[in-house]
This record gives sequence, structure tokens and C-alpha cells, in this order.
Amino acid sequence: MTSQTDALETISLRPIGFVETDVADEDVPRRRRDMVSEVVLLEHYLDALRGIDDYSHLVILFWMHRAPTGKPTLVSHPRGDPGLPLTGVLASRGRNHPNPIGLAVVELLGRRETRLRVRRLDAYHGTPVIDIKPYDHYDVVSDLREPAWKQARM
Amino acid sequence: MTSQTDALETISLRPIGFVETDVADEDVPRRRRDMVSEVVLLEHYLDALRGIDDYSHLVILFWMHRAPTGKPTLVSHPRGDPGLPLTGVLASRGRNHPNPIGLAVVELLGRRETRLRVRRLDAYHGTPVIDIKPYDHYDVVSDLREPAWKQARM
Repeated sequence: MTSQTDALETISLRPIGFVETDVADEDVPRRRRDMVSEVVLLEHYLDALRGIDDYSHLVILFWMHRAPTGKPTLVSHPRGDPGLPLTGVLASRGRNHPNPIGLAVVELLGRRETRLRVRRLDAYHGTPVIDIKPYDHYDVVSDLREPAWKQARM
Repeated sequence: MTSQTDALETISLRPIGFVETDVADEDVPRRRRDMVSEVVLLEHYLDALRGIDDYSHLVILFWMHRAPTGKPTLVSHPRGDPGLPLTGVLASRGRNHPNPIGLAVVELLGRRETRLRVRRLDAYHGTPVIDIKPYDHYDVVSDLREPAWKQARM
């Protein structure tokens, strides 16, 4: 079947920028809810940002370049906590996905040319950014269901 | 600066599955709000899905393999409509991003092994899937701001 053959080809992409933050790597997990960073895009993407200031929130896709490589993990305890149920990596938001793409919904605080100041981007300093998208009303889910263990930890 | 050098290296990734749908390519745009598709992951990712059924919604990342290549576009009219303001590609949800990664928030209708039945995935039949993530309460933005033209078209 053609579609399956297509699907198995390797994909190449190039970073469009990178993350700058003063927060040390080891502090990112506990500060993820309020940390402020800059997404610094390559200068030739300046025109590609026209109109982005009219959005309050963005989705940032980044490449978790320091995620462990080697034998792929299929299941793990969320947050490394053995008290939480063993969960498939694709059913969790951890770093050990087959393709280590990070996704963060962030607040856009301001922009200076290709530097976007954002709140709540849980990425290390130096992380390559591969795409950004304006967050729109289609991204809002109002009737959300999550696992019971997740709600209990909120 | 080390971080910028890191950021410019090419990234390789492999599809983890592909999209199956009966909807013809040309009908996807107008049916995107209610169309039903299957995300068919490679069989060795079965364990990686453990627990995903406890979520009502997922984020699907896919590779828009038929997006136009060649000279990169930096600005365009959203939806190809000249009545809408000329907008940077990174400030729109179109197909002409530097890395043509698609992002869709979908409803998980059911699962049979590595086949996930989902609603509202605006991807063509045969599209490579590169990651899936459970949608959680951190992805919900309640105080959203969008451009005036976008609200007027809702």
C-alpha cells in the first residue's frame, strides 16, 4: 500500500531558532508553570512572524536534543514516580517519545523582531525550535477527560 | 555560542504510523470539523499506547508530505483569501511553514490495538504521523486572544 511505504521514509527538518532562558536545566521541571524564556528565531524569519502579536498564546514545537537515545522505551512511570501506573510513552507527556518532539502551550508576553518572550515553555536553554503556531479556539477542549491519577495530582 | 550551533543541525525523524481516512484530499478542508479518521501506528508501538484510552482528546503531529516545497513562503493570505490580511506563515495555521508539521487536537473515539479512531484530524489519507500526545488540562487556554479578523469569521 502506497501510503504505508510513504509513511516509513525518514524525514529531515531544520531548526528555525532556539530557546534562551536563564533557568538552569535542573530547575525547569519545577518552574515549568511560570518560567519565562525567549524563542529566538533565525533572522530571515522576521516577515514570517507578521501578525503574530495579535495572538495571546502560541504552541511551540521543539526538539528535545538531550533526550536519551538508544534502546527505545515503550512504557514508564509518569514523572519517574513508581506510585503512578505504568504508562505507554505515547500516552504520556514525557521526554521518551520515539521522536522526541516537545510541545508547549505558552503565553506570548512580547516580541522584539525575531525574539519572542514567552511564559511557560518547559525547554532547556539552547533547545532547537522546529515550529511555532498561533494557538486558536480550535485548540481549546472544554469537555476534557483525563486519567483519575492525573486529576488526583492536580 | 554553543546553543545556536546546536540549533542549526539537521534533525532526522521517522514516522510512527500514518493516517487512514475515506475522505478525499479535496474534501478535507471543508470537512475538518467533523471528519473521522484512523491513526494507524506501527505494530511495535502497541505497548507505547498503554493507558491512552483514559484520555478523551489527543494532539496528533503529522508530516504534511504533500506541502509545496521549493522557495519558502514567508507571508500569505490566510486560507488563500485576499480579503484577509497578509500574514506571516508562522502566525498562521496553514501548510507553508518552514517545517511542514501539522498539529491537530482530536477526539479519541476508540482504539483497536494500534489503530486509533479519531474525530477532527485534518490530514490526508496516507499522511505520516510523527508523534501523538495526550491532551491535558495544561493545553486548555481560557483567556484566549485572537486577531479581530479571525473572530469575525467564526
